[in-house]
Amino acid sequence: MSDPDDRFRVIYRLAAGDEAEARARAKAVAIENTVEVPEDVIPAGYIADIVAGRVEDVVPEAPGFWSAEIGYHIDAVGSDLPQFLNVVLGNASIFRGVKAMGLVPNAAVRSRFPGARFGAAGLRARVGRSGGYLCPVLKPQGATIAELARLAHDTARAGADIIKEDHGLADQDSAPFSDRVPALADAVAHANAARATAGETARALYFAHVTGPAHTVHDRAFAAKDAGADGILMIPGLLGFDAMHQLARDPSFGLPIMAHPAHLGPYVLSAETGYAHGLLFGTLMRLAGADISVFPNHGGRFGFSRHECDAIAHACADTASPGRPILPSPGGGMSPERLPEMRRQYGDDAVYLLGGSILGAGDRLGAVVAELRAALA
Amino acid sequence: MSDPDDRFRVIYRLAAGDEAEARARAKAVAIENTVEVPEDVIPAGYIADIVAGRVEDVVPEAPGFWSAEIGYHIDAVGSDLPQFLNVVLGNASIFRGVKAMGLVPNAAVRSRFPGARFGAAGLRARVGRSGGYLCPVLKPQGATIAELARLAHDTARAGADIIKEDHGLADQDSAPFSDRVPALADAVAHANAARATAGETARALYFAHVTGPAHTVHDRAFAAKDAGADGILMIPGLLGFDAMHQLARDPSFGLPIMAHPAHLGPYVLSAETGYAHGLLFGTLMRLAGADISVFPNHGGRFGFSRHECDAIAHACADTASPGRPILPSPGGGMSPERLPEMRRQYGDDAVYLLGGSILGAGDRLGAVVAELRAALA
Repeated sequence: MSDPDDRFRVIYRLAAGDEAEARARAKAVAIENTVEVPEDVIPAGYIADIVAGRVEDVVPEAPGFWSAEIGYHIDAVGSDLPQFLNVVLGNASIFRGVKAMGLVPNAAVRSRFPGARFGAAGLRARVGRSGGYLCPVLKPQGATIAELARLAHDTARAGADIIKEDHGLADQDSAPFSDRVPALADAVAHANAARATAGETARALYFAHVTGPAHTVHDRAFAAKDAGADGILMIPGLLGFDAMHQLARDPSFGLPIMAHPAHLGPYVLSAETGYAHGLLFGTLMRLAGADISVFPNHGGRFGFSRHECDAIAHACADTASPGRPILPSPGGGMSPERLPEMRRQYGDDAVYLLGGSILGAGDRLGAVVAELRAALA
Repeated sequence: MSDPDDRFRVIYRLAAGDEAEARARAKAVAIENTVEVPEDVIPAGYIADIVAGRVEDVVPEAPGFWSAEIGYHIDAVGSDLPQFLNVVLGNASIFRGVKAMGLVPNAAVRSRFPGARFGAAGLRARVGRSGGYLCPVLKPQGATIAELARLAHDTARAGADIIKEDHGLADQDSAPFSDRVPALADAVAHANAARATAGETARALYFAHVTGPAHTVHDRAFAAKDAGADGILMIPGLLGFDAMHQLARDPSFGLPIMAHPAHLGPYVLSAETGYAHGLLFGTLMRLAGADISVFPNHGGRFGFSRHECDAIAHACADTASPGRPILPSPGGGMSPERLPEMRRQYGDDAVYLLGGSILGAGDRLGAVVAELRAALA
């Protein structure tokens, strides 16, 4: 019990009027996320001593808010990621005034959830260059496979590093998954062949969006790999974090994974519920196996602050977090004009998304991508 | 285009200072959830006319808030539930001041997402009685299989209708799934046999909690069925809504499903993001195939209001919603003393959860359940 590595810790921000209330709330969270019974009926021994969450520390944070550290034993988790998240913020997600701010993993968490297979260093090796990755997005949904393939080819040929499908490309009739992915993989392969012929050593990676009926997602990911995709995009907020985690863990899959933030907004938008930006889009994405974590940059269509974006980038790179450092991927309405400023903020180990803003380039698409490529170099 | 059934509609609450701003925000949501490109580069024809979301109506709701109705064509969805949710509130979940309040399905939505297999009427037939269902919860996690089996047997024998595993019972070493489920199914079967011998026509249903690695959830659900479970509990907020939906759709599975609200709190706790209570815990749970939707009752440990709980119950029962009416299941720290009041609020077609509060009954457990059973009759 005195082993400091005995438990992993979760830091929560609690709304409370005074320390006594804060301690009572912390105790309520510790119980709610584990044994979920009134304190006076928790069985003594193993359940009270090991399974139940334990309040480790409660300190004032700001007027009306307290920072509480709660320790959880891995026995409350077992080895499944859904149950890990259930312990971190399952029922307590329904409490008002309880926000998970950080995670301090222990050896048990690190061994069960080893994180990304590739991470920042692995992606660098796959692309074949360093220095910030340019990532055009294939869209809009409703476009034909031929139109998407042309966009994929032309952006790859012009020097893009990662060619990512829009997360709205699912399995619609306009571009069904089983026909689309081989065609786009082929388009990017042709562009890479031309780049190699021209003496380039770096190549573009094509990331297919994998979604669909829950029990088929695993097979679809392998189908994308068989069709020639270099990586996949997934939406953990719709498929569950473990859909991504299982693929990251599977050595026979072995492709990098990009996580998209769709449907996850409410977890970070309130100061009093959900997760801190860095915890969700950095630490938990890492732990669940993402190699790249997409989020909306400040100043675009969404309301994240510069500080919140810095927290995400820091959590992606932090060497104290579980698993390998991964690549933050700021996007969400970024214009080519903002790229130099973004580069200064996020640096080399980041994937710079360019979506709708480059679609207006028309016949100049290749030239625009090449200019952006040069701006990142 | 003039067919009123051409599109399904989602009603959003938008924060905006005036009507022009509200209309601009509605347009932004309609685009964000579908084509996700700047308006001036949306390709004319099929993509602009069919795929892109369309603002149908914007009316004032309250000072600073507007109600916007946006129509989406099923072509933007295809036939997968994750992409349906992505269209309803994917990227727009990350906008501040955008909350989805209601869904008006069309024929395309009704045919692709037919909803619960059993619903309220189907559960009534399976239990063999009407008039409010009493549902003790098997917990706490960390208890041995023998302890859980005794609790399952004794509550079933005393007249409980549904015996539900706690959602924190995953696959921990203290009670692994593969050993636990057959033992608890057996315990409830023994109690049912004794009830039948005593002349009772109603029987208790045992609901096993199914979670685990994402691509094994489907098989685990079938394993629970093979082991004798009468239904399953799932956490769509951790596994994804489609994990539940696929099982509900599968005629070879054919067991009722109870949905647990863990990890979903942030979607409803803000007035300005996420989903309205009734939409998430009523309409969307129905659409995703839940037969029973668990939520925390007002006045317990959680902060839902009476009005919010009424909205959930109404959405579960509403005959205009997609699929069969289902059973609301209020819980979250309900005491036996509150059962008569809850019965007056939720009526016959509801599952009344009793968790930690009955664990203190000790040797009087059977007697306490029998008293509650009588109070519901």
